Amino acid sequence: MLTYARDTTLAAVNGLTREQLDHLQDAGSNTIGALLAHIGAVERGYQVITFEDREPSVAETAAWSAALKLGDQGRREVRGHELQFYTGELMRTRQVTLAALAERDDAWLEAPLRIAPALNAHWAWFHVAEDEISHRGQIRWLRARLPQATAV
Amino acid sequence: MLTYARDTTLAAVNGLTREQLDHLQDAGSNTIGALLAHIGAVERGYQVITFEDREPSVAETAAWSAALKLGDQGRREVRGHELQFYTGELMRTRQVTLAALAERDDAWLEAPLRIAPALNAHWAWFHVAEDEISHRGQIRWLRARLPQATAV
Repeated sequence: MLTYARDTTLAAVNGLTREQLDHLQDAGSNTIGALLAHIGAVERGYQVITFEDREPSVAETAAWSAALKLGDQGRREVRGHELQFYTGELMRTRQVTLAALAERDDAWLEAPLRIAPALNAHWAWFHVAEDEISHRGQIRWLRARLPQATAV
Repeated sequence: MLTYARDTTLAAVNGLTREQLDHLQDAGSNTIGALLAHIGAVERGYQVITFEDREPSVAETAAWSAALKLGDQGRREVRGHELQFYTGELMRTRQVTLAALAERDDAWLEAPLRIAPALNAHWAWFHVAEDEISHRGQIRWLRARLPQATAV
């Protein structure tokens, strides 16, 4: 499910230019680039929570803040990158996720998370895919409305 | 996963009026009402494909067409309904899905679909949730942009 969701995300952004990745549909929108950064930051956050059984550190929280929060901070700080910047980060993050999942079993998947006992890793990783799919729906909507001058 | 996705969809449309459900963000948009109808129609289609092992009939295809295709036909034909019209249809459809799933086992879930052997029911029902989540992402985006005069 994670792989399928990712494939559809990559298909939705295929061929976009830096200008298109930085385009703001309106003053309240997130750019497609920022949504890609968000997808990667959410995954890195859940890696820490589920594989390392801890809250993200202060340094991690600061590094991921613009991508996680989006909005004003995202519009200010996440911009100016080519597509490969975002897809490279997504690929490296996903490699870590798949390697860590491969080392674990279903009992681990279903056990309560130590730092959030109301949740388990199964829910957490479903939620990572779910959040990505939701933003992919938004990316499709935004891509269909890129200005003619910058459309692929 | 189906239940969690549905809960988030219902939360995303909670309290919307008929006017808001019919609002068009731009000429190429789908209304939130049409997206809700689409979510229900996709689920009914996959009920036929997975539980009844057949293609939808001509009559079913015609009845679901506007909601499945969205676009011009959706804008023309899916409108004028209160929220309960859409949520009632979603609830009735979901009851059928959960009852049918409860009667089946994991071997059924993993077996190739008779009418589409490249797929199995596990993928099909993941895809139903995935499509709903993608459109829920769009609904959240559209709801945040409803005209002031009609906002909740």
